[in-house]
Amino acid sequence: MALIVQKYGGTSVGTIEKIKNVAKRAARTHDEGHQVVVVVSAMSGETNRLLGLAAQLAEIPNERELDVVASTGEQVTIGLLAIALTEMGYKARSFTGFQIPIETDTAYVKARIKKIGHSAIMDTLKEGGIAVVAGFQGIDETGSITTLGRGGSDTSAVAVAAALKADVCEIYTDVDGVYTTDPNICEDARKLDKISFEEMLELASLGAKVLQIRSVEFGMKYGVRIHVRSSFNDNPGTIATREEEIMETAVVSGIAFSKNEAKITFVKVPDKPGIAAKIFKPLTDANIVVDVIVQNVSVTGFTDLTFTVARSDYKKAMQVADVTAKEIGAAEVVGDDKIAKVSIVGMAMRSHAGVAMKVFETLSAEGINILGITTSEIKISVLIEEKYTELAVRVLHTAFGLGG
Amino acid sequence: MALIVQKYGGTSVGTIEKIKNVAKRAARTHDEGHQVVVVVSAMSGETNRLLGLAAQLAEIPNERELDVVASTGEQVTIGLLAIALTEMGYKARSFTGFQIPIETDTAYVKARIKKIGHSAIMDTLKEGGIAVVAGFQGIDETGSITTLGRGGSDTSAVAVAAALKADVCEIYTDVDGVYTTDPNICEDARKLDKISFEEMLELASLGAKVLQIRSVEFGMKYGVRIHVRSSFNDNPGTIATREEEIMETAVVSGIAFSKNEAKITFVKVPDKPGIAAKIFKPLTDANIVVDVIVQNVSVTGFTDLTFTVARSDYKKAMQVADVTAKEIGAAEVVGDDKIAKVSIVGMAMRSHAGVAMKVFETLSAEGINILGITTSEIKISVLIEEKYTELAVRVLHTAFGLGG
Repeated sequence: MALIVQKYGGTSVGTIEKIKNVAKRAARTHDEGHQVVVVVSAMSGETNRLLGLAAQLAEIPNERELDVVASTGEQVTIGLLAIALTEMGYKARSFTGFQIPIETDTAYVKARIKKIGHSAIMDTLKEGGIAVVAGFQGIDETGSITTLGRGGSDTSAVAVAAALKADVCEIYTDVDGVYTTDPNICEDARKLDKISFEEMLELASLGAKVLQIRSVEFGMKYGVRIHVRSSFNDNPGTIATREEEIMETAVVSGIAFSKNEAKITFVKVPDKPGIAAKIFKPLTDANIVVDVIVQNVSVTGFTDLTFTVARSDYKKAMQVADVTAKEIGAAEVVGDDKIAKVSIVGMAMRSHAGVAMKVFETLSAEGINILGITTSEIKISVLIEEKYTELAVRVLHTAFGLGG
Repeated sequence: MALIVQKYGGTSVGTIEKIKNVAKRAARTHDEGHQVVVVVSAMSGETNRLLGLAAQLAEIPNERELDVVASTGEQVTIGLLAIALTEMGYKARSFTGFQIPIETDTAYVKARIKKIGHSAIMDTLKEGGIAVVAGFQGIDETGSITTLGRGGSDTSAVAVAAALKADVCEIYTDVDGVYTTDPNICEDARKLDKISFEEMLELASLGAKVLQIRSVEFGMKYGVRIHVRSSFNDNPGTIATREEEIMETAVVSGIAFSKNEAKITFVKVPDKPGIAAKIFKPLTDANIVVDVIVQNVSVTGFTDLTFTVARSDYKKAMQVADVTAKEIGAAEVVGDDKIAKVSIVGMAMRSHAGVAMKVFETLSAEGINILGITTSEIKISVLIEEKYTELAVRVLHTAFGLGG
């Protein structure tokens, strides 16, 4: 008998029929002799409907109250799923954030989990019941309702699995698992059976949007095995786990990419200490997240400094940068919002030389110019012109032998 | 400075524009120097939408879980209203049932309030804030969400007013107040400025559906002045209060009526002790509420026994009655679902003879046959054929001089 946490996203519970299907799957797992906790999102479209109501009242709605409104979406789903399960003859009990409780900080609309109670849920499991938990929500120390931000239900599920010391956290989604790259771009993209949390983190954060990043961080921190699988079939998906549980690690596990990129360059900046802080502080103050930063070596007392931001922040970032440029005496600011980032991810990269070189050679052979590079222990990211994205992904996928 | 509880029903918060209007009215009361607590229902149609979702999953949905689903309607409204108020520059804070807390018994879908916390709301008021409270909902001792049943928001409002020792509980609705009878039937129906709780109770329970009965009971028990008024204008409405606060009481305050009636008669029942219990127990077991009961005097060892039920229960009640009739040896069961009940209500009736006689004479003069009568200290109800309802209301309204 295992303790299994199953998480179903908005599309998996988007209609009454789909809720019935989720109930059947949870019931089947229960019938197989397991203890089952189901974590659900709001029915698809519901969160947007609720936020849309609030948006009609205020451009920037009060965030405490926005969470009061938004958290009802998941509350409806847990009630409906528990009704479906009891109607099938199973014991089931729903839990909102305050009933578990899922304690968070007070950062409304993007709260972070601090602590999760386990006794209420365990009582239900011990009585042979199925626990149905609202994802995305918690309460702060004053008893106010909080939400974890978009995609927070994944985090709820993994956090609950950690608190209950569950054997596995199954994340049901509309894809079969994590692939070596997007199958829409590479026909021979292959599903990965197992990957390390670290690889999952890079693949998720780099645009292979299967799982919310924070949920993987949680899994890594507490050692929760995460099984990403399809809610439409019974095929095994991809298991993210600790590196030591993976017998054979490939040098490169997958190729991720993101087209949501824009690049800004400060040209001919006086190269003095503290200049980077002067450039990035106004951006941070404007709530703009800077991703890749590339600074050329200075030989003349001047340097060029390039960084990327999300494409949606491009206009605002350019405005901020223009002001900063005058203050610090940069010659000019140039930008380009037709940029993509392609990343090669793999645990074994640490101990294998030559991966970067192979990337450069492969892209160069296709005439693809590299506009910037960053590397970490387990990934290499290159910035390229957006129009080359698919080509770059395909040739790298082949070059590293990732095909099925 | 007064402490004012304002309650707005589903139609008053049915759209974003209407929610803004409610915010304006609450803000204006706050600007006038009062402490304001607003209690709101779900946006009109929302509760039905939620119950409709549940109904697609089960004919009789699990009631604990149904409350989890249904209570979200009010939660959305409090969040939206608090957003509207903060957007207008006011301090506002929403409260769900568990945050106040409104403690109830565990009778899901029809819970009764046991205790209401006041410190959380008072903290908000002391800081100059407007408290926005979800009607209709509470929590039981295990922390499960409960709802108070249809119209429960009125009860929430009066109960919160009682807990806070509010000066008045204003119930905003789509009518101007309580009238001597339905203005759609009597052109000269007159709005009552003040009535006693007892009269309000009879008028509400007898079909003048302005307020939920339980809320009036609460008001009576805790002495909460209830001001029923329109959310569409600033006219004073009707204040329900303790009898001693009403200087001048009319003999008859109003005429109520209900067409939701059906009549069932057991013919020629052996008149033995315990026979009434044998007749009514199966009806109670079938969850059918019996209203008026009339039993003829027995002179032959047999009696006829007539009672009324809600028209929606008529078919089921007839089936139950047919079975009972065989068991107790009644000659037959006859029924009629085209029955109306007209009630004459007034506090001073207690000390005035001749009211009943005037009713009988007035109806008789119009050729309206009385099919049954019940009386209490402050009301006389007569059963008549449904087709005479409007005529009966009009002639009684005139006979007792209720016109404006």
